[in-house]
Amino acid sequence: MKVKNLVGERFKERPSDCVVDSHALMVRGGYIKQVANGIFSLFPPARRVTQKIEQIIREEMDRIDGQEVLFPVVLPGSLWMESGRYQSVDNTLARFSDRNGTPMVLGMTHEEAAVQLVREYANTYNRYPFMIYQIQTKFRDEARPRAGLIRVREFTMKDGYSFHTSQEDLEKYYARCYRAYERIYARAGAPEVIAVKSDSGMMGGSVSHEYMLLTDIGEDSIVICPDCGYRANMEAADNIVAPTRAEDAPLTKVATPGCKTIEEVVEYLKGDAVHSAKAVVYQTNLEDKFVVVFLRGDLEVNETKLTNYLGENVHPAVVTEDSPVVAGFIGPVGISPDVKVVFDSSLKGSNGLICGANEQDFHYTGLDMDRDVPGAAFVDVAKAFTGGICPVCGKPHLTISRGIEVGNIFQLGTKYSKSMGMTYTDQDGNSQYPIMGCYGVGVGRLAASIAEASHDNYGPIWPISIAPWSVEVCCLRADDAQTKEISEKLYNQLENAGIDTLYDDRDIRPGAMFSDADLLGAPIRVVVSPKNLANGEIEINTRDKKIQVKVPVVEAFDKVREIIATLQAEIDATVPESI
Amino acid sequence: MKVKNLVGERFKERPSDCVVDSHALMVRGGYIKQVANGIFSLFPPARRVTQKIEQIIREEMDRIDGQEVLFPVVLPGSLWMESGRYQSVDNTLARFSDRNGTPMVLGMTHEEAAVQLVREYANTYNRYPFMIYQIQTKFRDEARPRAGLIRVREFTMKDGYSFHTSQEDLEKYYARCYRAYERIYARAGAPEVIAVKSDSGMMGGSVSHEYMLLTDIGEDSIVICPDCGYRANMEAADNIVAPTRAEDAPLTKVATPGCKTIEEVVEYLKGDAVHSAKAVVYQTNLEDKFVVVFLRGDLEVNETKLTNYLGENVHPAVVTEDSPVVAGFIGPVGISPDVKVVFDSSLKGSNGLICGANEQDFHYTGLDMDRDVPGAAFVDVAKAFTGGICPVCGKPHLTISRGIEVGNIFQLGTKYSKSMGMTYTDQDGNSQYPIMGCYGVGVGRLAASIAEASHDNYGPIWPISIAPWSVEVCCLRADDAQTKEISEKLYNQLENAGIDTLYDDRDIRPGAMFSDADLLGAPIRVVVSPKNLANGEIEINTRDKKIQVKVPVVEAFDKVREIIATLQAEIDATVPESI
Repeated sequence: MKVKNLVGERFKERPSDCVVDSHALMVRGGYIKQVANGIFSLFPPARRVTQKIEQIIREEMDRIDGQEVLFPVVLPGSLWMESGRYQSVDNTLARFSDRNGTPMVLGMTHEEAAVQLVREYANTYNRYPFMIYQIQTKFRDEARPRAGLIRVREFTMKDGYSFHTSQEDLEKYYARCYRAYERIYARAGAPEVIAVKSDSGMMGGSVSHEYMLLTDIGEDSIVICPDCGYRANMEAADNIVAPTRAEDAPLTKVATPGCKTIEEVVEYLKGDAVHSAKAVVYQTNLEDKFVVVFLRGDLEVNETKLTNYLGENVHPAVVTEDSPVVAGFIGPVGISPDVKVVFDSSLKGSNGLICGANEQDFHYTGLDMDRDVPGAAFVDVAKAFTGGICPVCGKPHLTISRGIEVGNIFQLGTKYSKSMGMTYTDQDGNSQYPIMGCYGVGVGRLAASIAEASHDNYGPIWPISIAPWSVEVCCLRADDAQTKEISEKLYNQLENAGIDTLYDDRDIRPGAMFSDADLLGAPIRVVVSPKNLANGEIEINTRDKKIQVKVPVVEAFDKVREIIATLQAEIDATVPESI
Repeated sequence: MKVKNLVGERFKERPSDCVVDSHALMVRGGYIKQVANGIFSLFPPARRVTQKIEQIIREEMDRIDGQEVLFPVVLPGSLWMESGRYQSVDNTLARFSDRNGTPMVLGMTHEEAAVQLVREYANTYNRYPFMIYQIQTKFRDEARPRAGLIRVREFTMKDGYSFHTSQEDLEKYYARCYRAYERIYARAGAPEVIAVKSDSGMMGGSVSHEYMLLTDIGEDSIVICPDCGYRANMEAADNIVAPTRAEDAPLTKVATPGCKTIEEVVEYLKGDAVHSAKAVVYQTNLEDKFVVVFLRGDLEVNETKLTNYLGENVHPAVVTEDSPVVAGFIGPVGISPDVKVVFDSSLKGSNGLICGANEQDFHYTGLDMDRDVPGAAFVDVAKAFTGGICPVCGKPHLTISRGIEVGNIFQLGTKYSKSMGMTYTDQDGNSQYPIMGCYGVGVGRLAASIAEASHDNYGPIWPISIAPWSVEVCCLRADDAQTKEISEKLYNQLENAGIDTLYDDRDIRPGAMFSDADLLGAPIRVVVSPKNLANGEIEINTRDKKIQVKVPVVEAFDKVREIIATLQAEIDATVPESI
């Protein structure tokens, strides 16, 4: 491919609407163009990257006996009504009516379609287990698309669905898929991706993992224990707190005029947030019913865990004079029975706490949970925090990192087979619901995440396995006959050897040529210039500057192949064995 | 791949809702499953076929300097408003509102998206010409999906868009693409596909061709001249008719009580349809205005040509007592001025014609167009017919065949660049609109069409270039240790050689195994049975029965490779050189 023919423009200025580097570089490098909010077209360089990623994914799915299929983008609403998600999923699910007025949806995930495809076929135990997957366009009408390809509304995704006759068999396959995902990220040049325990959200099911590429611009918080290796998405991380104990003291009402936040109260009473029970007020989305969460004053509510516990969505409360709570002064003793109360585990067994008195300008001191709120049930709905206790090894060294979710795997259980009436006959002739797993990777997000993890100010530094081109030949003086001839010969030689090669023979300044080459990010750059040719040499560099050599003209082709092999071997060394 | 693990069921009974063979065989063979009317999921065998077709298309597009990109499925309505198609396309275009109420459409073709992608980039003449293409899902809310994958609502399509600075350059590229398409069909094993002149329809532009796979179940009528090779879609075929001449006679009103159809009238008057002027009544879609087409009594109206002439869509008229025409008795003399009259060229210079008298139960005889309808303008709006005159060579031997459109190419002109304000600066510094071409192939339809063109009662006979598997190894007695061992060894040998191989080691009757093999359509079948092994032999057949041999066990692998090479060479021999 000649750079002069390559469709797409490259430029220097960072676009003002690009917050993250990968987004800015992919716009500046002519990789992507926004068509609507969160909807992009891909220029050839981006399409080449996603195609290489797709091929890696395909190979790894085939390796674990996945069978590639294709589900439709447009699905009948009736299929989603079967599973109940037509009703339960919010307007992230795009709905429309076809020409006959039939409700249709745009597939945002394809559990329903997977069940629909195989529910007649897989009607007997000996057809199990199996896994089907597709690589297809998805549409999710996200409220807040951001960061280029990292959070979009339309994207290409590999989604796989496995079907099993026992939880044990699912777990065995889940482990294989877990490993296949590690291989995918390693092969794509992102071995730093880690798997973390995650919340299953709208997918249903119990065990699930997200694959996180750790980066400061990530939207997710990841809780990591440096001692034992425990890793979980904040949404799913257990929070373990020892009871707060103090001298026994009577429950005493004290005036706290104007002290509404827990910080104001503890400062006024010369206490400590750890020795307090903070109230956080929510309302349920459907009925606006009040929910008050009490937790240790220095902690925060984990709304995902709260939602999972309640079984319904909540939003921060709008408290008025008519509300059954006194904003700023809410406490567990004497609280209105119209309020649903949730006690976080952080309060279990604690005493000597400051808390609201459910009366304007008054708090209690000396709250003893066992004594003053007998029979309270406790549930973990607080966020884990830096220095918190690891739920696995018990050491208090938890750290919080940020990450981009680049894949997820779920043990779905029988949620979809049950709701959609998919059964098989087992060995004893009984009818059973198959157990499912599902496995997703967003292709474009992975491409952008890798650019985020591996770039400099001048452009992405693509791993050779997914680079749009492996090599770029820069002919520094296209007007010089010898330079041009040697460049062109090498370009053709590389192309004929099946090596993706970009060739820049434009009559432009070397600086401009190198800027473009940086943006296009070929891992290997071959520079042919009259100056080096005077010494019979050609310059070969890697994009990451680790290799910078000059070799005799006749050796250039072999040297490039050698460097390609080296770069690929470096990647291969990070890829774990499949299971 | 082992047949016993292959997801999808195969069965013998022809489904009652399948009208065409390819549809029935693709359902019976576990290739496709309907999800909604005209919307299908693909099982692994179909996905494998479409993937191979996609790869052939990709290679041919790359060969003519196409650059692969990816446009979104979901497009903002505003983009289609720019071109005017948001308004002009009927409800085949699926429209919906996103969560913010913004109008969105599902891409049914991507001219607008192509212009949007490159209109900043291609702002100067030296960036031309170029072609970008994608392979992506399309949705068209067709009123009448039918015949399995042949006419669907959702499908995978390769659509390419070229941009040029002169008509001459477009034509040069169009010729290359025309050839690339011939290569695609030949490589996919359908060399019998022919290019025909077509109507440009909603795409705009002037010259266009459709690629037709000739088959009786095709929806399109193709006009072919066996003498000079002229080929056109009926929609676009010129109709050439010599004037009908007779003895001069005066225009005479005659009673034709109850004779409403032209057949009734000519029979009653003992005339001849050729010597009559038939009236066909339409109404315009927007204003319900009456349009009467007069044409020679034995001809039919070509509604596509009529629509193109009128510049608006029409539908058959609903004639009531209040209408400005007298149904069954409409004629050109004395017709109401409230009616738009169109004279087909077949009447030009004709005389001695029977026609309606615009009066209940009366016709005229002796109509002389020149004398009685002076100043009439004639336009070709009739269908070509068997035995008609070829518009190129003039010989009266036209034939009509049926075909499935498996691709189309259009010279679009400046329709989209003008409406969407895409310009470039030419060598003289002037602003110009680029000239576009567009090029489409439906992947699934091509797969189904090939199955239609090449099948027997037992299943598709896939060309080796697109077969889901090249070879199937049938182990006829999985319970026989030697048979199993030799089968398995050969299967592994073939797989390791990179040959797509299906392996059936199920413990089932040979008949059932062969039925499945017929449905899965691997071009080469290797049968390993105790009976042949007793002679030290393995049986190798081709799906089309042209090759049926027994070879010594040790030679089987080489023989299979040899047959693969032979089958591929047969296909290669049909592929024209690229230009």
